[in-house]
Amino acid sequence: VIAWVFDAERFGAPPEGVTLATELGPDVVFAVPDDPLPDPSALRSLEVVQVVSAGVDWIVDRLPPGVTLCDARGARDGAMAEWVLAAILADAKELARCVHAQDEHRFERFEPRDVAGGHVVILGHGSIGRACARVLELLGASVTGVARHARADARALDELGALLPRADVLVNLLPLTPATRGLVDAGVLAALPDGALYVSAGRGATTDTEALVTELRRGRLRAVLDVVEPEPLPGEHPLWDLSGLLLSPHVAGDTAAADRAALALAREQMRRHAAGEPLENVVSDGY
Amino acid sequence: VIAWVFDAERFGAPPEGVTLATELGPDVVFAVPDDPLPDPSALRSLEVVQVVSAGVDWIVDRLPPGVTLCDARGARDGAMAEWVLAAILADAKELARCVHAQDEHRFERFEPRDVAGGHVVILGHGSIGRACARVLELLGASVTGVARHARADARALDELGALLPRADVLVNLLPLTPATRGLVDAGVLAALPDGALYVSAGRGATTDTEALVTELRRGRLRAVLDVVEPEPLPGEHPLWDLSGLLLSPHVAGDTAAADRAALALAREQMRRHAAGEPLENVVSDGY
Repeated sequence: VIAWVFDAERFGAPPEGVTLATELGPDVVFAVPDDPLPDPSALRSLEVVQVVSAGVDWIVDRLPPGVTLCDARGARDGAMAEWVLAAILADAKELARCVHAQDEHRFERFEPRDVAGGHVVILGHGSIGRACARVLELLGASVTGVARHARADARALDELGALLPRADVLVNLLPLTPATRGLVDAGVLAALPDGALYVSAGRGATTDTEALVTELRRGRLRAVLDVVEPEPLPGEHPLWDLSGLLLSPHVAGDTAAADRAALALAREQMRRHAAGEPLENVVSDGY
Repeated sequence: VIAWVFDAERFGAPPEGVTLATELGPDVVFAVPDDPLPDPSALRSLEVVQVVSAGVDWIVDRLPPGVTLCDARGARDGAMAEWVLAAILADAKELARCVHAQDEHRFERFEPRDVAGGHVVILGHGSIGRACARVLELLGASVTGVARHARADARALDELGALLPRADVLVNLLPLTPATRGLVDAGVLAALPDGALYVSAGRGATTDTEALVTELRRGRLRAVLDVVEPEPLPGEHPLWDLSGLLLSPHVAGDTAAADRAALALAREQMRRHAAGEPLENVVSDGY
């Protein structure tokens, strides 16, 4: 039995050939193909879980033993890259300032910043980061990727500290794992130069929220965040009112095109499973 | 005598070798090189005016006869292209909505739009439009340029009407000339499909403001405008409070990098003039 896990509220009814089986938690629905009845016993024969998100942090610890977990890496790359570029460009052109000036009917000129000539460090440099880098380089910015291990297009994580002092923008696309929790801490933020921009779109818990609040309160950095810790952000949280901060409600990857690609991937995985072919995007093979 | 015309408030003191001569109008300073005294008589020997803006609509009718006018085309292309991309991406990711939700401490999810897969029509397709097109195509959007006359990468203006019904975004980068004044009128806007985005960053008077207000009031289109007519926009103008509209105060091209490039061009033109070499960017040779 192969299961898809998706947010029923967003995706609505499961696609053809897929029947809801049981709930794993809030907002999470197991959709088991070819099982006509919602039946928790289907879980007993569960072999594979295919999620429609790139990250698996929210489910990896909640699966029964022996179950293969597959992510939807790649499906949301385009949407994520668009959001990161929107964040960097909107910050440079001070569009949040424009919104507030418009609210007050003020036509007040200022000098927007250039993305060209700037240096962007992308932490968690994978396929999303590479899509961002292609556009940023076309715009005349330089990009340095940082990944766990050095690769042709990425430096190793232990070089991050040396790269930060000359970063105009730090983009955090890290997945949440025990190794990345709180990785962007007070030390990382302090190593950024005055006036740098911090963009976060992976998982909120990879950033030390308190350290970020401290830097933003000082007015030393700006930030555009699609992910925060905790989510949803409580109404009384200090982040809301910090100037130089723009918050987006964890939606960067949730476009129609990304959903279509993720569901197409899930359907293709079902077909592979039924045909006895090897699955793709295997995160954990259950052993 | 060669003169630079620039906004003294933004550029501050004239560069080395250039002395202020006289004022042509508000915010406009004639800087005449090698003339030690502010002396309006310098105008009598004026041969060339080099502006540091791409457009010349604001000065072309105010020059003494026989004066050669040169624009700064190219110098602000990168800044303009960044702004147009910021406008399109920020609209797709609904960043203005995020600003307002943040003001009210609301963490409220929504589905951002995709730029990928969309179709962008660029009206006034020159070097800025081409810079935008390269990035938009890399993001998976398709682009059609429209210019006065058909070229390899642009359709002719008389094809615009046929292109609009399938445009997700219309970008207006037209210069202001007698032929382009009010070119984006009620008919052009009506030809856009429901939910299309209108981006304007050339000159405000190329858009029929009243027609745009009507479409925005209906909620049929969205818009991001760096230029409006009139500027500065009066405090009581209906544009301010229209939902689906983001206003920026005519700053798209005014970044530090664009200013550096425009001043470098002006210096190079001075050198050419002094050496008896032909000038570049000649808009009108004074005859």
